[in-house]
Amino acid sequence: MAVYTEVGDDELEEFLKAYDLGEVRACKGIAEGVENSNYLLQTDRGTYILTLYEKRVAKADLPFFLGFMDHLAAHGIACPTPIHGRDGKALRELAGRPAAIISFLLGMWPRRVMVGHCGPVGEALARLHIAGAAFDMRRSNALSLAGWRALFEDCRTRADEVQAGLADELAREFDDLSARWPKDLPSGVIHADLFPDNVFFLGNRLSGMIDFYFACNDFFAYDLAICLNAWCFEPDLSFNATKARRLVSGYRRVRLMLPTEIEALPLLARGSALRFLLTRLYDWIHHPAGAFVKPKDPIEYLKKLRFHRSVTSPGAYGL
Amino acid sequence: MAVYTEVGDDELEEFLKAYDLGEVRACKGIAEGVENSNYLLQTDRGTYILTLYEKRVAKADLPFFLGFMDHLAAHGIACPTPIHGRDGKALRELAGRPAAIISFLLGMWPRRVMVGHCGPVGEALARLHIAGAAFDMRRSNALSLAGWRALFEDCRTRADEVQAGLADELAREFDDLSARWPKDLPSGVIHADLFPDNVFFLGNRLSGMIDFYFACNDFFAYDLAICLNAWCFEPDLSFNATKARRLVSGYRRVRLMLPTEIEALPLLARGSALRFLLTRLYDWIHHPAGAFVKPKDPIEYLKKLRFHRSVTSPGAYGL
Repeated sequence: MAVYTEVGDDELEEFLKAYDLGEVRACKGIAEGVENSNYLLQTDRGTYILTLYEKRVAKADLPFFLGFMDHLAAHGIACPTPIHGRDGKALRELAGRPAAIISFLLGMWPRRVMVGHCGPVGEALARLHIAGAAFDMRRSNALSLAGWRALFEDCRTRADEVQAGLADELAREFDDLSARWPKDLPSGVIHADLFPDNVFFLGNRLSGMIDFYFACNDFFAYDLAICLNAWCFEPDLSFNATKARRLVSGYRRVRLMLPTEIEALPLLARGSALRFLLTRLYDWIHHPAGAFVKPKDPIEYLKKLRFHRSVTSPGAYGL
Repeated sequence: MAVYTEVGDDELEEFLKAYDLGEVRACKGIAEGVENSNYLLQTDRGTYILTLYEKRVAKADLPFFLGFMDHLAAHGIACPTPIHGRDGKALRELAGRPAAIISFLLGMWPRRVMVGHCGPVGEALARLHIAGAAFDMRRSNALSLAGWRALFEDCRTRADEVQAGLADELAREFDDLSARWPKDLPSGVIHADLFPDNVFFLGNRLSGMIDFYFACNDFFAYDLAICLNAWCFEPDLSFNATKARRLVSGYRRVRLMLPTEIEALPLLARGSALRFLLTRLYDWIHHPAGAFVKPKDPIEYLKKLRFHRSVTSPGAYGL
């Protein structure tokens, strides 16, 4: 839940003058997203999301994120799209923060993931990868090997406070992944954070994807491996191979995967688990004592990581 | 900002079957209100607020609050109204909490109070008092003299941690107010918490009042005295007599005030300042160390209280 920056009524009115959206009729802070301040904005013309970008999002990356959303929408992908002002610009400033108005996407994210969600998620991810091919901006993945190393070095001395032996296990894992990480898989713009709270459904139909603020250039199969971690474990952290099969089959119905991509999935899934383990570990170690927002448990991803390490072939994913 | 209770998609769907609102199209936690969990709910039929009542609201009081909102709406007062299910009931249970769906009120609360807001607020308050006269339920004011005493006794030994001498000053204030508190002013159902964040405007027009969860039976003039504290001090805590005059004039355009009510305003305003001082003091003393939500400063209300104590006649309010 997050509203870090309060917006005054006068400054909102002034801000809206740059747009063709009519008068403001309501504006309520919404409790979604943890990185930015989000308001549900209603004007004479409709309902929108007003986002104020907070410190964790680099201002220099915003043209990439907003441009990618524009690009996807123009290529028929259901996602929120930036609203452009009369001057053509989508990104401006409000209450001292970079700010944008984004279209409102109907739907709800699934609080409980069912097998039936996974096929549509795979299909949507593949469509995103294909649509992104013609996007002409680039953003390297700050949370790949080099980023993991920086996070690991920062957390190393305190990792064992979370679980005894964790620092050693992570060091071994990191060395092994570094040595074996693929270099030449098909790549392009990936979502990089397609967790259930970023996919909306209306009934059984996937209505769209949101939150493109981790999007970057990387292997397509790595994006699918992130979804294996995000969608295919049960609350008790047991792996659900049926969900994985539906997810990957959905993806392959839309985009042809090379055999090398399929073969790399267990390794990519380990890397993806390590990525979320490290960011959670970092937040765990650095969160202010007694803060209201409890950091997520890093150990969940240690367990997922160990599962993928035990996988000897993609067959374990039901493929 | 507040979403204390998460609602699952299945249970929301089930819950909505009791209503005639069609299918859910979106449901987002909103960051307004500190007592309850609020969701902005969109269905085929429109936009609503879904409220889950948390522990600080007594379940036994909910029929009074919801009934009062129904009553006000039926009497032409612009306010959110409870949506009744097919069984006629407005109050039911969701995610283990009492829950209701309330109509969505357009408008925004003024982040910066201007003189022009105060007249309409006075008028709306008077209309609420008149419309409430025919309401046949009663709820005594838990935050009048007896409630203040209980809060004061709880905080007494630690009050001086907030400011030296505070406990003595509050004891004297409480004794004086108890001795002189009016017994026979016109009374009825009052809002009891009509702060700027509970009054919505569309442009210059007041579009409605919200948050009736402190409503109770008490003196009408006490409700107006609460508004003197809530609307008529500048951010530097100087009293703005122009705002007060507009507020009270607006009120009197709609409801005739007795001379005894006008005379009592300084005393009632002291009582109202003491009420907010004590609840803030209580929250200050009892809030968990390091909690995310910083309690509001009680000293703001000590300063307001001292101002009202210095007032020798209602003329100081610009009347």
